[in-house]
Amino acid sequence: MDVTRFRTVKREIRVLGIDDGVFTPQKKGKALIIGVVYRGGLWLDGVMHTQIQVDGLDATEKIASMIVNSPHHPQLRVIMLNGLTFAGFNIVDIKKLYKKTGLPVIAISREKPNLNEIKKALENLPYKDKRLKAMENAGKMIEVSVKGSEGKIYVQIAGIAEKDALKIIRVTSTRSHIPEALRVAHIIASGLTHLKSNLKQ
Amino acid sequence: MDVTRFRTVKREIRVLGIDDGVFTPQKKGKALIIGVVYRGGLWLDGVMHTQIQVDGLDATEKIASMIVNSPHHPQLRVIMLNGLTFAGFNIVDIKKLYKKTGLPVIAISREKPNLNEIKKALENLPYKDKRLKAMENAGKMIEVSVKGSEGKIYVQIAGIAEKDALKIIRVTSTRSHIPEALRVAHIIASGLTHLKSNLKQ
Repeated sequence: MDVTRFRTVKREIRVLGIDDGVFTPQKKGKALIIGVVYRGGLWLDGVMHTQIQVDGLDATEKIASMIVNSPHHPQLRVIMLNGLTFAGFNIVDIKKLYKKTGLPVIAISREKPNLNEIKKALENLPYKDKRLKAMENAGKMIEVSVKGSEGKIYVQIAGIAEKDALKIIRVTSTRSHIPEALRVAHIIASGLTHLKSNLKQ
Repeated sequence: MDVTRFRTVKREIRVLGIDDGVFTPQKKGKALIIGVVYRGGLWLDGVMHTQIQVDGLDATEKIASMIVNSPHHPQLRVIMLNGLTFAGFNIVDIKKLYKKTGLPVIAISREKPNLNEIKKALENLPYKDKRLKAMENAGKMIEVSVKGSEGKIYVQIAGIAEKDALKIIRVTSTRSHIPEALRVAHIIASGLTHLKSNLKQ
């Protein structure tokens, strides 16, 4: 698979951080997805949003549309996800997301995902194979030591070389041990809980 | 009226910036209000939200409840508003907001509000006197020159000395000529347009 090369990583590289809002697990309904455009780890440039089905299969498609339909798309250089699973077990296929958007994808987890537990949970859901495929497409899990005593983060990538991904994570993690775009996407999505619940149908 | 004194203004002073989302003018319905907690002009610490009636009278009450019910309330030092009018002509009485929250209020407009035009518009709305009173309570309009060639901003204050308000504006305007909390509240509220319209009843 092709990989987007980064000759240098500018301090003000435009990145998109994506996280989901709170939702009721195992209930049909929609969850809010928030995308935050950041200039490096420095300042916020924009916000976008979409909705996906709880435990559904539409995360990759909906997130890709949100991005390519955004006026920010031409300026973005990389997508960062808070892990692979959104709104329960609606799993993003990062290889497909890279293909659909033309943007490299870096999925970052603060805790080591327990793959066996996830696979067990998938047993109870329809289209198990499709979900497993999306998880496999995310490739190997890279363990990254982060500054200070804050331990490790766990990274999976698509469309980007490992060393470039790590450089981008380093440059954009200004305030904490995760990229600012992801930290802020989490705060915004969590802060809009009530809105999300209003959206459920 | 009492005034909260600021012996020093810390670079990381916790401020709340408030703006409204897009709404359909002159139609009954609700508009989204977003509050963004910032550490000075440096980084985002939290997000809160409420809804107010388009052209209603509930802006002061709803914004005060949003703030005092937020876990951020005890840490906040000052409230910043994008002007006085939200969701059309739902006017915030900044003196009352100061009393209800215990926090000084700084209302900032990027363009000089045309008071005559606002007063004319109020003629067509119920409770005109109440709205006019809220506008009068905001006191004199302070014209402030901002750095660079970006001209002026227009400031009204409650519960704070003019020199302290100007110092806080200066410290928190890191990225542009308005405080970062207000710049970001505007981006988030605008970016959630569609959510807001879903909320309308």
